[in-house]
Amino acid sequence: MLDTCYQQLAMVYWNGAGSNVELECGVGYSAVLKGFYSIRSGVFMSGFELDYRLEADCFHLGDLPLCRVLLMNDSQYPWFILVPKVAGVSEAFHLDEEQQLQLACESSIVSGTLSDLFEADKMNVAALGNVVSQLHIHHIVRYENDIAWPNPVWGQKPVQPYDEEQVKEIRKKLQSLFDCFD
Amino acid sequence: MLDTCYQQLAMVYWNGAGSNVELECGVGYSAVLKGFYSIRSGVFMSGFELDYRLEADCFHLGDLPLCRVLLMNDSQYPWFILVPKVAGVSEAFHLDEEQQLQLACESSIVSGTLSDLFEADKMNVAALGNVVSQLHIHHIVRYENDIAWPNPVWGQKPVQPYDEEQVKEIRKKLQSLFDCFD
Repeated sequence: MLDTCYQQLAMVYWNGAGSNVELECGVGYSAVLKGFYSIRSGVFMSGFELDYRLEADCFHLGDLPLCRVLLMNDSQYPWFILVPKVAGVSEAFHLDEEQQLQLACESSIVSGTLSDLFEADKMNVAALGNVVSQLHIHHIVRYENDIAWPNPVWGQKPVQPYDEEQVKEIRKKLQSLFDCFD
Repeated sequence: MLDTCYQQLAMVYWNGAGSNVELECGVGYSAVLKGFYSIRSGVFMSGFELDYRLEADCFHLGDLPLCRVLLMNDSQYPWFILVPKVAGVSEAFHLDEEQQLQLACESSIVSGTLSDLFEADKMNVAALGNVVSQLHIHHIVRYENDIAWPNPVWGQKPVQPYDEEQVKEIRKKLQSLFDCFD
């Protein structure tokens, strides 16, 4: 039995439906991974609710086919969080294969785009979840002169919330990311 | 232009060469992701050398098609590190698409297997690299009663090296992981 994800990919290509659209964010993922139809149709969102602590600590910037994109309300680092819109999942390996590949794709595009937009020295990408178990993947832009470097950011410094203008600016900056998926 | 990874997947399936082998580690990845031929043939290893700090701090347990598997020499947590055997790469999004999918697959299988074998309360999976920039992905088994919980492990407590017998035991325990890829 072929696993559905690869079977779908094979079918998409065989049927010529997978025509490749160049992404403008400079990451060469093929159009098929911009969102499988089953993801686009929202079947994975059934029952999904964002954890109340992520809701309280973050701004909702927008949605990719699989993941909700959040901005952590800490102006000390450009700190973004991807939350797969799948109910009851605490580990990436709990996702089905299609979702796992989609997550790998979205995480890669988000990392590459953030690295470019914010001229990162390093990206920190991490799924921890010891406090909030709902699967969420941190994508943090790091600089060699940021206040926690070279340590990880968690628990280092008290949070410094953004003001409204700063959030607006980041929303504008990130528009190109969401445009990639339109 | 189709991206090579998906083109290869499509070709493999079309040609019927991608027959699915059930993995024994309980993760349902299809055989094709056990290692593309180009990975198996070692082309990605050209020029790869493990960073000397990872070499010094870890035991080499074995190799998956893409990644070297290391055991961090800290007996306080079952702490494993995957290092893609690709020279000059510091971010997952620098890998080509085929390598990225392979990494997602290997990381998922490793996480799921470790979670089972060590009866984890939570897996922590992270690519940081602020000190050692060579791309390496931590896979750390966490327990609600481990000494750093619920904090991340980095920089929490001085390392407690393993004794020889403990390492031998872990090698034995992990054999089933490598068997998945044989």
